[in-house]
Amino acid sequence: MSILVVGSVALDTVETPFRREEGVLGGAASYFATAASLYSGVNLVAIVGSDFPQEYLEYWKQRGIDLTGLQIEEGKTFHWSGRYHLDMNTRDTLDTQLGVFADFHPVVPAQYLNSPLVFLANIQPTLQLEVLNQVSSPRLTVLDTMELWINTAYDELTEVMKRVDVLLISEEEIRQYTKQPSVLVAVRQLFEMGIRYVVVKLGSYGALLFGTDGTYFSAPSYPLEEVQDPTGAGDSFAGGFLGYLSTVEPQADQHYSVDDLKRAVVHGNITGSFACEKFGIEGLRSLTIEQIAGRYRELVTFSHFDTNWYPGQR
Amino acid sequence: MSILVVGSVALDTVETPFRREEGVLGGAASYFATAASLYSGVNLVAIVGSDFPQEYLEYWKQRGIDLTGLQIEEGKTFHWSGRYHLDMNTRDTLDTQLGVFADFHPVVPAQYLNSPLVFLANIQPTLQLEVLNQVSSPRLTVLDTMELWINTAYDELTEVMKRVDVLLISEEEIRQYTKQPSVLVAVRQLFEMGIRYVVVKLGSYGALLFGTDGTYFSAPSYPLEEVQDPTGAGDSFAGGFLGYLSTVEPQADQHYSVDDLKRAVVHGNITGSFACEKFGIEGLRSLTIEQIAGRYRELVTFSHFDTNWYPGQR
Repeated sequence: MSILVVGSVALDTVETPFRREEGVLGGAASYFATAASLYSGVNLVAIVGSDFPQEYLEYWKQRGIDLTGLQIEEGKTFHWSGRYHLDMNTRDTLDTQLGVFADFHPVVPAQYLNSPLVFLANIQPTLQLEVLNQVSSPRLTVLDTMELWINTAYDELTEVMKRVDVLLISEEEIRQYTKQPSVLVAVRQLFEMGIRYVVVKLGSYGALLFGTDGTYFSAPSYPLEEVQDPTGAGDSFAGGFLGYLSTVEPQADQHYSVDDLKRAVVHGNITGSFACEKFGIEGLRSLTIEQIAGRYRELVTFSHFDTNWYPGQR
Repeated sequence: MSILVVGSVALDTVETPFRREEGVLGGAASYFATAASLYSGVNLVAIVGSDFPQEYLEYWKQRGIDLTGLQIEEGKTFHWSGRYHLDMNTRDTLDTQLGVFADFHPVVPAQYLNSPLVFLANIQPTLQLEVLNQVSSPRLTVLDTMELWINTAYDELTEVMKRVDVLLISEEEIRQYTKQPSVLVAVRQLFEMGIRYVVVKLGSYGALLFGTDGTYFSAPSYPLEEVQDPTGAGDSFAGGFLGYLSTVEPQADQHYSVDDLKRAVVHGNITGSFACEKFGIEGLRSLTIEQIAGRYRELVTFSHFDTNWYPGQR
């Protein structure tokens, strides 16, 4: 079941305490598409400049990523440059060059219009709205965002939120958007806007799934000895989340079961862990579905415990 | 199966953004004993001054806490005064008055010497050693500590660590003690000292259990809408952890099964959640074992997921 994604494709300069690379394939849609393509076909809506390496396009085609919706314009590809601090949890943006992205307006090709799953990766809310206005009643719409849009495009972001089924958001971002210190109270506030599921990403602590039907699920993270580069972890999470759902037949009412949504969050944590483990997009490029299955089985043993609370009598 | 605890009993002044109270029952041993007494008898080794309210002693006796090892000396009870910041995760110590605790040397009464479970709550490592030197080969020794002793009594703390079975430690503390940014690497370093199990407490994110036998377990936290007062959360965690183990018959080799250690960590998270939910020790005083069972069952549904990673064929 194919997945439509709109988002940024970039050539990044990434600096960690251990390594620095220029011209690294980056951008939310790149991480998402690479991860999700392990599960299903991906329909990419994005823009790159004439400097974008042919090699990456060939790789994506080979992975079953449809590039009909990828605009290639004369000029430079979006460029982000960032430096991670020693703790690898915080980073400074050193430079952002929009390039051809400055004039981007997403155009969803006719053959993408019926994509049952739609992921609005982290770009300007107005562009996310443009995509929602083009697609015809997808089964599930999933939204990602970032601090920048909460600060600079709050009203437009709120418009998008009211129109999607699932929101992926970090703990800091949900507090920032709702101005609520309690995540549980914050989530209820989002539910009142019509969102059905909220996934709160906790970085190295895993993720929480909340549903308007009362669902609450705490998904364990996969323990990593070392994080090489957290860039794209959230986008890779989304790729595993939607990737997993793309393999599932929804129920008669076109909704996904809670069990499947839980599994999707676990898949998201797994693809996110592979992304962090290597530099740039490397951790995803060589990844196989069998490796994902391996970590899934490990996470079961890492997080399940005896369902009987008490062994016997005192 | 009775549990011996040595640690501080205090009268605290606690200030949160919402409330301020003086003369609140506090101290690591108080929280621990109150939580653990829900499961088994507790043998308390501690010191209080002549100002210590009789009411608390009566309450503890009624809860099955043996006070033979509680020294009552002329003078003032240990007093801690602290103020929590708005995020409730950080706090400033405003004042510490050692009172009778300044000259404290733990004396383990004869009838406590064979306690199968021993908890060394967060006090000076030299006092923890004094207790280890008195007890006769307990089945399980569990150690807690804090930043202060890592900074001021590193060598003595290391001595204690080499002699215990289980270490309870926060994520910040383990990084601080080992100087390792990676928790996985840090834990291996502790294993080389002879500790068999390390529980890394992640606050509102739950806890991780590591064993020299390769055990790795990520225990979910119980989601709280609001944290009233995190004082004593770690000590209450220890109370639930050891409390649960006190109800279990260990295996033939006198070791606990991995399943039971996992359950113990879940119980720890639960007692910790009740402690945080109300001010001071209130959340534990009215607590019943049935309420703990209720949250245990909830945590199963909150954290378990389908063990099959994939629903079918692509």
